[in-house]
Amino acid sequence: QRECEGSRDKRGSNYTQSVSMRSSLAGVSGATPTEEMNGAGNLMDFLDEPFPDVGTYEDFHTIDWLREKSRDTDRHRKITSKSKESIWELIKSLLDAWSGWVVMLLIGLLSGTLAGVIDLAVDWMTDLKEGVCLSAFWYSHEQCCWTSNETTFDDRDKCPQWQKWAELMTGHGAGAYVLNYFLYILWALLFSFLAVSLVRVFAPYACGSGIPEIKTILSGFIIRGYLGKWTLLIKTVTLVLAVSSGLSLGKEGPLVHVACCCGNLFCSLFSKYSKNEGKRREVLSAAAAAGVSVAFGAPIGGVLFSLEEVSYYFPLKTLWRSFFAALVAAFTLRSINPFGNSRLVLFYVEYHTPWYMAELVPFILLGVFGGLWGTLFIRANIAWCRRRKTTQLGKYPVLEVIAVTGITAVLAYPNPYTRRSTSELISELFNDCGALESSQLCDYINNPNMSRPVDDIPDRPAGPGVYTALWQLALALIFKIVITIFTFGMKIPSGLFIPSMAVGAIAGRIVGIAVEQMAYHHHDWIIFKNWCRPGADCVTPGLYAMVGAAACLGGVTRMTVSLVVIMFELTGGLEYIVPLMAAAVTSKWVADAFGKEGIYESHIQLNGYPYLDVRDEFTHRTLATDVMRPRRNDPPLAVLTQDSTTVEDVETLIKDTDYNGFPVVVSRESERLIGFVQRRDLTLAIKNARQKQDGVVSSSVVYFTEDAPQLPASNPQPLKLRRILNLSPFTVTDHTPMETVVDIFRKLGLRQCLVTRSGRLLGIITKKDVLRHMAQMMNQDPESIMFN
Amino acid sequence: QRECEGSRDKRGSNYTQSVSMRSSLAGVSGATPTEEMNGAGNLMDFLDEPFPDVGTYEDFHTIDWLREKSRDTDRHRKITSKSKESIWELIKSLLDAWSGWVVMLLIGLLSGTLAGVIDLAVDWMTDLKEGVCLSAFWYSHEQCCWTSNETTFDDRDKCPQWQKWAELMTGHGAGAYVLNYFLYILWALLFSFLAVSLVRVFAPYACGSGIPEIKTILSGFIIRGYLGKWTLLIKTVTLVLAVSSGLSLGKEGPLVHVACCCGNLFCSLFSKYSKNEGKRREVLSAAAAAGVSVAFGAPIGGVLFSLEEVSYYFPLKTLWRSFFAALVAAFTLRSINPFGNSRLVLFYVEYHTPWYMAELVPFILLGVFGGLWGTLFIRANIAWCRRRKTTQLGKYPVLEVIAVTGITAVLAYPNPYTRRSTSELISELFNDCGALESSQLCDYINNPNMSRPVDDIPDRPAGPGVYTALWQLALALIFKIVITIFTFGMKIPSGLFIPSMAVGAIAGRIVGIAVEQMAYHHHDWIIFKNWCRPGADCVTPGLYAMVGAAACLGGVTRMTVSLVVIMFELTGGLEYIVPLMAAAVTSKWVADAFGKEGIYESHIQLNGYPYLDVRDEFTHRTLATDVMRPRRNDPPLAVLTQDSTTVEDVETLIKDTDYNGFPVVVSRESERLIGFVQRRDLTLAIKNARQKQDGVVSSSVVYFTEDAPQLPASNPQPLKLRRILNLSPFTVTDHTPMETVVDIFRKLGLRQCLVTRSGRLLGIITKKDVLRHMAQMMNQDPESIMFN
Repeated sequence: QRECEGSRDKRGSNYTQSVSMRSSLAGVSGATPTEEMNGAGNLMDFLDEPFPDVGTYEDFHTIDWLREKSRDTDRHRKITSKSKESIWELIKSLLDAWSGWVVMLLIGLLSGTLAGVIDLAVDWMTDLKEGVCLSAFWYSHEQCCWTSNETTFDDRDKCPQWQKWAELMTGHGAGAYVLNYFLYILWALLFSFLAVSLVRVFAPYACGSGIPEIKTILSGFIIRGYLGKWTLLIKTVTLVLAVSSGLSLGKEGPLVHVACCCGNLFCSLFSKYSKNEGKRREVLSAAAAAGVSVAFGAPIGGVLFSLEEVSYYFPLKTLWRSFFAALVAAFTLRSINPFGNSRLVLFYVEYHTPWYMAELVPFILLGVFGGLWGTLFIRANIAWCRRRKTTQLGKYPVLEVIAVTGITAVLAYPNPYTRRSTSELISELFNDCGALESSQLCDYINNPNMSRPVDDIPDRPAGPGVYTALWQLALALIFKIVITIFTFGMKIPSGLFIPSMAVGAIAGRIVGIAVEQMAYHHHDWIIFKNWCRPGADCVTPGLYAMVGAAACLGGVTRMTVSLVVIMFELTGGLEYIVPLMAAAVTSKWVADAFGKEGIYESHIQLNGYPYLDVRDEFTHRTLATDVMRPRRNDPPLAVLTQDSTTVEDVETLIKDTDYNGFPVVVSRESERLIGFVQRRDLTLAIKNARQKQDGVVSSSVVYFTEDAPQLPASNPQPLKLRRILNLSPFTVTDHTPMETVVDIFRKLGLRQCLVTRSGRLLGIITKKDVLRHMAQMMNQDPESIMFN
Repeated sequence: QRECEGSRDKRGSNYTQSVSMRSSLAGVSGATPTEEMNGAGNLMDFLDEPFPDVGTYEDFHTIDWLREKSRDTDRHRKITSKSKESIWELIKSLLDAWSGWVVMLLIGLLSGTLAGVIDLAVDWMTDLKEGVCLSAFWYSHEQCCWTSNETTFDDRDKCPQWQKWAELMTGHGAGAYVLNYFLYILWALLFSFLAVSLVRVFAPYACGSGIPEIKTILSGFIIRGYLGKWTLLIKTVTLVLAVSSGLSLGKEGPLVHVACCCGNLFCSLFSKYSKNEGKRREVLSAAAAAGVSVAFGAPIGGVLFSLEEVSYYFPLKTLWRSFFAALVAAFTLRSINPFGNSRLVLFYVEYHTPWYMAELVPFILLGVFGGLWGTLFIRANIAWCRRRKTTQLGKYPVLEVIAVTGITAVLAYPNPYTRRSTSELISELFNDCGALESSQLCDYINNPNMSRPVDDIPDRPAGPGVYTALWQLALALIFKIVITIFTFGMKIPSGLFIPSMAVGAIAGRIVGIAVEQMAYHHHDWIIFKNWCRPGADCVTPGLYAMVGAAACLGGVTRMTVSLVVIMFELTGGLEYIVPLMAAAVTSKWVADAFGKEGIYESHIQLNGYPYLDVRDEFTHRTLATDVMRPRRNDPPLAVLTQDSTTVEDVETLIKDTDYNGFPVVVSRESERLIGFVQRRDLTLAIKNARQKQDGVVSSSVVYFTEDAPQLPASNPQPLKLRRILNLSPFTVTDHTPMETVVDIFRKLGLRQCLVTRSGRLLGIITKKDVLRHMAQMMNQDPESIMFN
C-alpha cells in the first residue's frame, strides 16, 4: 500500500520544509497564521508585534497537544472577557460556543449525502457491467425492476426492462455468455483504470482505506492535504469507480476518510477549529464516527468505532458530538434511501429462532477461523506491500491495478457468488431462508405434508441447489482470500471491511449449512437431542454467516466492542450478542497470539508514521537516561543561553542542526533550564526582526530574560525573544522509568520532554526517540520510524 | 444525604490514621502489605529488607495513579521473567494474565444473580403490603395469578388465589378499604424501619445511591469499607426493604454500588488486583457497567454509563472487559428471569407507529421540562441535604425515614398510580394501548364500525377512564416531584433513576394524551393536516412518556449518550433515537444553563470529596506559582536533605507537620531536587529500622544518596533510605499555567507535583491545592474540600 508515501519518506527524514504540490493542490489549512501565541508563557514580553505563523507546525511534524489546548483556552478566555463588552461580542461568543454543534450538523448532512450518492452510483455502475435499463439508463437493475411487479428473487432476471448487454446487441445467441463475460471484464478494466488514473493525477492521498493515516493524524501528526477538498472530491469519485469495478474491496473504510475530509472542510469555516490542530482533531474524531455510521447505518457502532479504533484524544464532549454527527449522518442517509427499503442499515436481517448453548462450539470455531484468517491476511498483505514499496513493482501502480482487476474479473464472472457485488453477497448469506426466499441457497426439500408458515420453517434436508451453492461458495472463499491480499493497498480507494466480512460470511454460511444438515439427519445424536427435535427450526445458517463475518472482521481489525455493536445494530436484537461476542473475542485472542497488531497498526508501522499506540504496553526496565539524547559519546546538547547568545550564533545553530527546538538555559556552566524554544518560531522571529526591527544585526544579543539590560549605545540593539519562549517545558528526571515517560507522552500528547538530574539539564527525549526506543525493545528496526 | 460522612469530616481533616470500626468490619483489603516497592526508583538500594505496608495508602487519602501503574508493570515484569524458569511459573503467569477475565465472569455471575434475587424479593414484598397468595405465600401477586388463567389486566384483581389483607381477615366489609389502607402503611413503616436500622447498625456506608462515592473512589480516593462484604450484604437486604416500603426511590443506582462491591470482593481473590489500587479501579469500572446492565437489562448502555458517568481511567482493555462483564450479568439475570417474560429489559416496549417531524416540538418541550425539573430537583435536594448535615435534623435519621415513609404511604395509597410500585407505573405509562389493553389509560371510545386490528389502532377519542387517569396522574406528578426531593439522601439505599423517570413518564404521558386528543379532534388544523389524517394512528402517548422519562433522567444526571443508548436498548429500534436524543440534549442544555453540575457531582461537592471532574474546564489565567505552597508569607517548604538529616530531625519533621510527603534536595542552599519521599513510607521505614537494624539511633544520619560514605566507627550507623525515595517526582515550572497543571493532575492521576524555577525547588502543589484553587476560582468555599 501507499507508495504515495515513498516520496515522503525521503522528505520526511530530513527536517526541511516539505510543502508538496499535493498539499498546495489540496489546500488544507493548518498553516494559517495564528494571531496569538502559545499561552504557556503568560508573562511574555508584549512589546514586539505578533508575527504570522508562530505556533504552527510544519508538514509531517507532530503537534504538541498541551500547547494546542493552552492556546484554545487563551482564545476562549479572550472571547469570554470580550463578551462582556457589547451585545455584538456576546452574540459572537455564543456563536463560537455553538460552532461545534454546527460543524457536527454540517458534517452529518454532507457525509450522509455523500454516502447516499456513493451508494446509488455504485449500485448503478455495478449493474452497468452486466446490462442496462431500457426504460431509463440511469436506473440500476433493482430500480429498473421496481416498476414491473415481480419482486421475488426468482423473477428478478425475468424483468423485461432490464437487458443484458448481449441480449441488447445480439439477442440470446450462443455467444451471449461469452460476450457478456467479455463486456463485464471491459467495464471493470475501464472503471479501475479511471480510478487509478484519477488518483495518480489529482490526489495521491485518495488511495487506500485512509484509516491508518487518519489514526496517525488524530494522534497528532500533520499531513497536509490528506484531508483536503481535492482528496475529498477525488476519493468520492474514485471510490465509486473502484467498488463498481468488482475488485475485492469495500467502501466502508474510505467512507471514514471521506467523512473526515468533510470534517476538515467545515473546520475551515470556524477559526476555532481551523487555527487549532488539537480542536480540529476533536472534530475529525466525530467525523470518523459519522463515517462508520453511514457506512453501516450504525450510529452507536460508529461512535464506538471512533472511540475504540481511530481516536486518540476523545473527551466526553467529543462523545456527545460524535453521537450527534453520527445520528444526523444516519438520518440524512435514510432520507436519501439508497437501499430503497427505508431501512437505515446496510444488511438488515431478522432471525426467528433463538440460538442454543451447543451452537457456541461452531461459533467459537468460526472465531478461531477468523483469528487465523486475520493473522494470515495481515502477514501476507504486509509482505506484499513491503515488496511493492521496495521493488520495481511500486513503479507501475496503474499496471498493477489493471492486472489485478483483469484477474479478478476473469475469475469472478463464472461464479455467481463472486460476480455480484460483495455487499449483495453478504446480504444474501446473512439472510434466513424464509418461505418466500427463492435463492439457490434456500433450495431445501420441503415436506409436502406440512403447511408452510411464513416465519417458523423447520429444518429441512438440503436440495441440489444448496449443494451447488456450497461448492460455488467454497470456490468463492478461496478466491476472495487470495485476491484480497493483493487488492488491499493498491493505489485506489479500498476498504477492508466488506472483503473481510465476505470471507467470514461465506465460511460461516458453509459451517451453518453443515451444522443444519447434521442436525437434521442425526437428530438422535446426543449433542442435538436436547435442543433439536425433528420438525423444529433449530439452526439458522444466516446467523452463522453473521458470526463468521464478525470473527473475520475482528481478526483483521482487532475491534471487539464496536464490532459487536455494529452487528447488533444490524440485527437490532440483543439475543445474538453472545454468539457475536464469543466469536469476536475468540478471534481477537487467536489473532493476538500471533501478533498484537491489527491491519491498521501494521500499515502505520510499514509507513513509519510516528504513532504511539494506546494499546501497546511498555514493560521494559529502561530509564529516561537510556533514551535521551545526546547519547554518551555524542556532542553535548545544543542549547541557547538566556542572555549571551548572538543572532549569528542562533542562525549558525539553526543551520548546523536539524533539531525541532532548543532548550534555553541560564548559562552553559550551571545548565539550569529556563525554557524551550521551537526551531520554527525562532527562525520566523529572527527573519521578522531582521526585516522589521531596525538595528537588529548579526551581532545583536538574543535575550530570553524578562528585561533586557540597558546596554551602551555602541552595542547593537538586542533582540528580545521571551515572547516565543515556552516557560513551562515538560521535564522528567533521568531516573524516570521509560514506562512512565511513554505514559506521559501518550496521555499528554507531548512532542518532546526535557531530562534533568537534580535541576541540571541533561538531555531531551522526543516522540520519535520514544518510538525508536519502543521499536528497538521489540526487536524492530528503529530506523523504520521516519517522521517527526 | 450522607450524614454517614459527618464523622469522617473530622477524621479526614487531620492526617491521622483513621481505620474505623466500619472498615474493620467490612475488611476491604487495600491495606494489605505489598511485597515490592514503587518501581519508580529502579536503582534503589536493595540492602534493606522490604518491610510491610510500604507503598500503600491511608484511609481517605488519594492514590497516585502513575505509581500504581508503575508498580503493576514491575509485578508484570517479574512474572514474565519468572515464567521462563519453569512450567509451573508459566502456568502461573497464564493464570495471572487470565485473572482479569475470570474476575469479570465472576462479577457478571454474582451481580446478575443478586439483581435477580432483589427483583424477585421486591416483587413479593411490594405485593405483601396489599395482600397474600393463598396457594403459596412466597408468590407475588403476579406469580400467584399465573396459575389461574386470567392474564389480562382487568381480570387481575379477580384472581381468586390472591387475597387482600382485609378480605382475608374480615371479608368484603365496609371497613375493608380502611383496613387495607392501614395495613399498607404499617407494612411500609415496618420495612423502612428495618432498612434504616440495619443500615445504622451494621453498614452506614450502605445508605444512598452510592454513585457519588463510587465516582470518587474510581477517581483515586480511598474509602475503606465502602465496597466491603458487609456493605454488600446489608445494601442488598436493605435495598429490598427500602424499595418495598413504597418510598419514592429506585434500585438502579444502588445496584451499581452492589455490583461494585461484588467487584471489590473478587478483587481480593487475586493479588494482581487486591494489592494495586489502580488495577482494582479498572475492575470496579467494569463492575459499574455490569450494575447498570442488570438494572435496566441494557449491557451496551451499562458500558457507556460507566464510561460517560462513573469512570475516571477507562483504558480500552477495560472497555472490552466491561462489555464482557455486562453481558454475563445480563444473561445471568435473564436466566433467573425475574420479570417472567424472558425479556432482558426492565421496560420492554414496542411501538407500531413512526414519529413525525412535527412531534419534535412536544418532544423538545418535554426536554425543557426535564431540564427544569433537573435543576429544581438538584437545588432543592442539595439545600435539604445541607440542612440535614448542618442542623439537628441529621441526628434523627431513623425518625426521618419513618416520617417520610409514613407521609409517602398515607398520600400514595389513595391514588392507584402511586400505590403500585414505581417501575410498574413506568411500565404502564410507556406502553402503547393495544387492542387487548384494559388499563384505565387505554379507555378510549372505540368506533363500533371499525374492525379492531391488533397492532394498528387509529387515534380515538378518550373515554371517561382516560380523563380520570389524567387527573390522577397530575396529582401523582406533584406528589412524586415533592416527595423525591426529601427521599433522596436519607439514610437508606435509594436510587434516583426510577423516581426521575417516573416524573418524566407521567409528564410525558399527559402531554402525549393531550397531543393525541388534539390531533383527533382538530385534524384539520394546519399542523396536523399533513401527517394525521382521520382514521390514522399518528400519536403514540407511550412514546411521549418514554421521551419525558429520558428528559427528566437527563436533567438530573446530565447523561446523554448512555441515556439514549439505554432507552434504545429498551425499545430495540433505531427509529426513536432522534426523539430521545432531541429531548436528552435539550434537557442537558437547559439544565446546564442553570448550573453545570449533575446530582452526583453536587453530592460529591456537598460531601467535600477530592474529585477532579474531567468535565470541568479550567479557564482562568493563574499560574502554578499562584497555587503552590508555601505561600508568600509562609514558612519555607519542609524538605529533607540527601545526606545531612538525622533520624531525629526526620522524626521531628514528621511530628511537627502534617504533610503527606517531603521533597529531598541536595542541600538547603542549592535547593536542587533529587526526589520525593512519602510520609507514610518514611514513618514505616524508620520504625522498621529502629526495631530491626542495630545501631540506628536518633543521631544516625539518614542518607538518600546511592552510596553512604564510609564513616568513622564512632559515628552511629547511618540509615540508608534510597529504597523509599521516589527518584522521578513530577515537576512543573512556576510559570506553568494552572490549566496545564489541572490537565496533568487529571490525566496522569497525580497526588502531588513539585514546582521548580530554573532547577531550584520552589514549592509543592497537591491535588487538594488544585481542588481548593478551582473552588476559589468558582467563588466557592475552598475549605469545602476536606479530604486528601
